[in-house]
Amino acid sequence: MSELKRPALHPNDVPEVRSTGYPEPFRARVRERAKRRLGDACGLTRFGVNLVTLGPGSQSALRHWHTLEDEFVYVLSGQVVLVTDAGEQTLSPGACAGYPAGSRDAHHFVNRSDKPATYLEIGSRIEGDLAFYPDDDIMWCNDGNGEYAAHKDGRRYT
Amino acid sequence: MSELKRPALHPNDVPEVRSTGYPEPFRARVRERAKRRLGDACGLTRFGVNLVTLGPGSQSALRHWHTLEDEFVYVLSGQVVLVTDAGEQTLSPGACAGYPAGSRDAHHFVNRSDKPATYLEIGSRIEGDLAFYPDDDIMWCNDGNGEYAAHKDGRRYT
Repeated sequence: MSELKRPALHPNDVPEVRSTGYPEPFRARVRERAKRRLGDACGLTRFGVNLVTLGPGSQSALRHWHTLEDEFVYVLSGQVVLVTDAGEQTLSPGACAGYPAGSRDAHHFVNRSDKPATYLEIGSRIEGDLAFYPDDDIMWCNDGNGEYAAHKDGRRYT
Repeated sequence: MSELKRPALHPNDVPEVRSTGYPEPFRARVRERAKRRLGDACGLTRFGVNLVTLGPGSQSALRHWHTLEDEFVYVLSGQVVLVTDAGEQTLSPGACAGYPAGSRDAHHFVNRSDKPATYLEIGSRIEGDLAFYPDDDIMWCNDGNGEYAAHKDGRRYT
C-alpha cells in the first residue's frame, strides 16, 4: 500500500480485475486485459477511469462503438495498435485517442508487441448507452430479465 | 506534428493555452499553468481531458470544490503537492486523485518543486455546475448578462 490518503491514491492500492461479460469465443481475446478501477475507487460516478494493463496478444475489447458514451484513452507505457474503420496505427506512450458518442467508427486496441502495455481509459456513464460490434457476431439483448449476449440472428450465447 | 490520424492524436498536435477567468490577484497564481485540451480536440463533449503543465511555483487552480462536476487527476511527470482540508501530500508520477461532485473537501495542486510537472485532468461537463473557494475572497455571479467574478460581499472585481 502507498502512503497516499484520500482523495489521492496510488493505482497499486486498487485491486486488478480481469472480468468480462463476453461469451466464448470472444472472452479469450481479452484474457490478458487487467483493469484497476481508479475512478470508482475515488467515488466518482459521472465517468469511469481505469488503468488497464494489456498483455501481449490481447485486445482492449472487441472492436465497437457506443451510442451515448464518450471514450478517451491515453497510452502510458508500451505500444498498442489502434484499429478503426480507416485501418491501423501504432500508439506509443503519450499518444491518445478520443471516441465521441454516436460516432460509428468502431475502435479497439490490440497489443501486437511482446511486452505489456498500459493505458488510461475514461468513459462517461450515461443510462441507455448501447455498444455495437461491426466485425463480430455478437449483440446485447434484454428480455426484461437482464442483459445477455446473443448472435446477430437472435440466438443466445450459452 | 505527429503522424497520428484521428481518432488518435499526439498532445503536441494540440495548442497550449494559458487562459484563466480569474481576476487579479488570483490570476498570477496560475500564470505558469498551460493546458492542452485533448478531449475537445477529439470532439468529446461529455467530459474534458486536459494535459496540464504546471511550472514551478504555480497552482492548478484556486483551492475549490464543484457542486456537479466529478474531477480526476493523474500525475505524469514531476511532483505536485495536493492540498485538501486534511492538509498536504506530495504526488509523484503514477499517483492520482478523484474529487466527487458535491464533496466539499476543496482541493488544488501546487508545484513547490523547481521543475515543471505534468498531469492529466478530467472533469465531467454538467450544466448548472458551481465552484466554491473556501480560502479566497472570490465567487462567481451572474446578473443575466454573463458570469463575473465578485468579492464575497458582492462587489465586482474590476
